[in-house]
Amino acid sequence: MRRASVLRLGHRVPRDERASTHLALAARALGAEELIYSGDRDPELEAKIRDVVGRWGGGFRITYTDRPLEILRRYSGQGYATVHLTMYGVGINDVMDSILRREKVLVIVGGEKVPRVYFEEADYNVAVGWQPHSEIAALAIFLDRYFQGREVDTVDPYPPTIVPMKRGKLVIRPGSGGSDA
Amino acid sequence: MRRASVLRLGHRVPRDERASTHLALAARALGAEELIYSGDRDPELEAKIRDVVGRWGGGFRITYTDRPLEILRRYSGQGYATVHLTMYGVGINDVMDSILRREKVLVIVGGEKVPRVYFEEADYNVAVGWQPHSEIAALAIFLDRYFQGREVDTVDPYPPTIVPMKRGKLVIRPGSGGSDA
Repeated sequence: MRRASVLRLGHRVPRDERASTHLALAARALGAEELIYSGDRDPELEAKIRDVVGRWGGGFRITYTDRPLEILRRYSGQGYATVHLTMYGVGINDVMDSILRREKVLVIVGGEKVPRVYFEEADYNVAVGWQPHSEIAALAIFLDRYFQGREVDTVDPYPPTIVPMKRGKLVIRPGSGGSDA
Repeated sequence: MRRASVLRLGHRVPRDERASTHLALAARALGAEELIYSGDRDPELEAKIRDVVGRWGGGFRITYTDRPLEILRRYSGQGYATVHLTMYGVGINDVMDSILRREKVLVIVGGEKVPRVYFEEADYNVAVGWQPHSEIAALAIFLDRYFQGREVDTVDPYPPTIVPMKRGKLVIRPGSGGSDA
């Protein structure tokens, strides 16, 4: 079974709070096991993600590092393909077949300025298009292709049931035993 | 050739500024023609996106509406499939084949609370997984699948060339005639 971890470089408080929340939740929902982030330590971000994990299940982890380059090297040493998502990379359509041969990936997502060493040490510099857009979008497409679309089915095998009500909706989630009014 | 437009409901200033910027840039980079948004009008958001279009090319448009439901109905009347992305929907893996038969889509991306009428009037309520994550990630995966991965190749046929330099990097973009130091 494929495994993916995500390394997010250079998180900044408060500027990146929401973007990193989106990134972490997308990583979790799309099959990654963990987000490791560097930059500013952000206990609120961590609490928010752990709260989602507590309520929605799974074993997703969020951890801080002040030595992101060591993470890259350690995962590489453990057999992970290290994949740096950057618009200055090789097109995803040209490189995905090669990456799909690898059973584990560390996906590296940059901030504003990514030090040159990441371009040099990553196994792959991958562009999800050569246009400026969003690291959240790039990560989502990468994970969807890496897990070949199956990740959206496997995370929660019990889709919620919506019971229409006069006002609002009742959502029954069999996986959690609970419901949201 | 397939066509996609995106309708973003309930943009809030300042809370959604960055998320909507990511959403608009992802929509553009992933082959959509336009973003129409409702909620708070945000001239700064519009200026930011138009600036990217001016510098990076293409005909992407961003426009505001205070009648988003009329947009849904108008596009529907013009033959667009209306696809509401929501975690309370049918799994994307189960419904994508049907959507792929349609040549034009209006993708509807909600804010915090989407009025019931959108669930009722959209042709499809589609879940990109049944876990909470990010509308940016959901839109990215939807567009990648709708354009069958080709959108990342077609937006800019000339990938940038990176010339390694002692300090930083020189980026040459043949498509634009310019370079970023």
